[in-house]
Amino acid sequence: MSEPQRYEFSSLQAFVESALLVGGADAPSARAATRAMMHGSRIGVDSHGVRLLPYYLSVIASGEINGHPQVVVERGPGSTAVLDADGAIGHLACYRAMEEAVDIAKTQGIGAVTIKRMSHMGAAGAYALWAAEQGHIGLLTANSDAAVRLHDGRDAFHGTSPIAIGAPAPGQRPWLMDMATSAVPFNRVLLYRSLGITLPAGVAVDETGRPTTNAEAARVLSPVGGEQGYKGAALAGLVEILSAPLTGMALSTELMPMYGQTTGAPRDMGGFAMAINPDAFIGPQTYGAIMTRYLANIRAAPPAEGATGKPMAPGDREWAVEDERKLNGVPVDPVSIAAFQELSAKFGLTMPAKV
Amino acid sequence: MSEPQRYEFSSLQAFVESALLVGGADAPSARAATRAMMHGSRIGVDSHGVRLLPYYLSVIASGEINGHPQVVVERGPGSTAVLDADGAIGHLACYRAMEEAVDIAKTQGIGAVTIKRMSHMGAAGAYALWAAEQGHIGLLTANSDAAVRLHDGRDAFHGTSPIAIGAPAPGQRPWLMDMATSAVPFNRVLLYRSLGITLPAGVAVDETGRPTTNAEAARVLSPVGGEQGYKGAALAGLVEILSAPLTGMALSTELMPMYGQTTGAPRDMGGFAMAINPDAFIGPQTYGAIMTRYLANIRAAPPAEGATGKPMAPGDREWAVEDERKLNGVPVDPVSIAAFQELSAKFGLTMPAKV
Repeated sequence: MSEPQRYEFSSLQAFVESALLVGGADAPSARAATRAMMHGSRIGVDSHGVRLLPYYLSVIASGEINGHPQVVVERGPGSTAVLDADGAIGHLACYRAMEEAVDIAKTQGIGAVTIKRMSHMGAAGAYALWAAEQGHIGLLTANSDAAVRLHDGRDAFHGTSPIAIGAPAPGQRPWLMDMATSAVPFNRVLLYRSLGITLPAGVAVDETGRPTTNAEAARVLSPVGGEQGYKGAALAGLVEILSAPLTGMALSTELMPMYGQTTGAPRDMGGFAMAINPDAFIGPQTYGAIMTRYLANIRAAPPAEGATGKPMAPGDREWAVEDERKLNGVPVDPVSIAAFQELSAKFGLTMPAKV
Repeated sequence: MSEPQRYEFSSLQAFVESALLVGGADAPSARAATRAMMHGSRIGVDSHGVRLLPYYLSVIASGEINGHPQVVVERGPGSTAVLDADGAIGHLACYRAMEEAVDIAKTQGIGAVTIKRMSHMGAAGAYALWAAEQGHIGLLTANSDAAVRLHDGRDAFHGTSPIAIGAPAPGQRPWLMDMATSAVPFNRVLLYRSLGITLPAGVAVDETGRPTTNAEAARVLSPVGGEQGYKGAALAGLVEILSAPLTGMALSTELMPMYGQTTGAPRDMGGFAMAINPDAFIGPQTYGAIMTRYLANIRAAPPAEGATGKPMAPGDREWAVEDERKLNGVPVDPVSIAAFQELSAKFGLTMPAKV
């Protein structure tokens, strides 16, 4: 297998957006999906970066994602709104929902928007980050098809159920957490299978539900927490409650899988966006001063003896990758490059510029 | 050491409330603290149950907790309020904050209240449960003095930073999660020390930051998640951000410890209460139907082979304990019984009735 190739950021971005446009997405859908995929590729969340372009094109083509949705946002009482995505690509739905949440929070102090009838939204952190960049604490979550067992459970029950939260910090990039509530992503299992190496203990089980470190035998992920996996499962439950009962959409066990034969039917996923405006609770000076001190304290915390890394604030690893990729371009894996070349030939698009 | 003794619930409750009243708490403080401690003792969270009565009495006596606070709630823009607890016992501050959050959510769909200048609030689940009993999704969190390291860190940095969330379910007790973001509570370490048994792997470190299973050597707790401890630390960070920068209160590392010599100075802790009204987003029938199906699915999920338990919904373990204790009374440990006997003699209170 050949090495990843580095591509120039804005050229890669233009390629992705053009492919979506010629592949059946309208301009708002293409712009939102490109922005969110480039978020992943910029900060090193490559699982949700440009490698997903061929997937999104395939489900736009099948009709599973509506490329020309009529997204409707209806304000509810006070600080609430409900967004009906009309089968849109999740990125469009989530950016739009977070924009509404921030808009509400500007005057109401807090804004919460439920998302109905969307599809896969990529990296949840993209939307929480955007809210933080507007000066708000942003939260975004969504459920997804079952891949993670309950604590003590055998079968897939919850999605990997990400929780993304961003918090602004004056004069620096935000505090940003974007965590799956599973111990590891399923992509890790697939990677370890192909590399023939063993999994860490406690992250997956075989078909009987017994813990396994054999990547070949691993069938279902475990919730984060190991012996305290009931905590990870409860966090996944929070995601489920905000995404299904609160939106009227399906439970994780009832959602069509992301991969596999697409039937062309919409996946009708649910999600939840919330913004908290610090200015509504506390003066920006006080918030900013304490946040600055908190982040400085994390970065100055002495490492444990024998630790492989040093303490970092959530997001610090990502900002370091962003800085490096700004200099050296965005790496794209060989499988995705081959897919891009096919798209280039099929749609008559110029390949992105290498660095 | 003798066995725990079982006490009759309402008699125990009356004893606790009377002791607080004669010990310097005003009626609202005594009522709130009793209610929250009895929550812990009723559902099996004994660490935050009636055993804390002597602690609260000692810090009311020293002036660290203001037994006669002027709690002030000021409504902010839209869906927000700020509660100044005036050094109150945390239970009073948290119930009052959650009442305000629910009251706001009734008309605004969501309500969020920051809590300033309170003291220890016991089991966070008490307040989230109350919100759920009113038909709202409730969240309560607060920071506390540093006891948990950062991922890769050596020293105590975050409090055990609980996150409690309750969600209503029609015709049954709520879904209720109340989790510390540390792997285990420090009380577990103390218990294992006294029993001379080893800790599970990955829950604590020694003074150099190296993982240890030796309870004697354990100095600092690890964040929940083991190898994925950065997830637990990020969740603790969320608690810190909502409790300190958003309230103007101190960071966990800056708070006076809960135990040790009390100086009589207020601890000035911060916290955050939020309520989400499902009716503002979705009809109660739809919410209730999906929530009912979700809980039934959890309870019907097949257990893993070799699992020591079966899958449970967050709260199910607690409701089982509640049912058992309703029948058989509330167990109180011998150390607390001795303390109660002292209080009984000191204040001329009748001891609670045994079962």
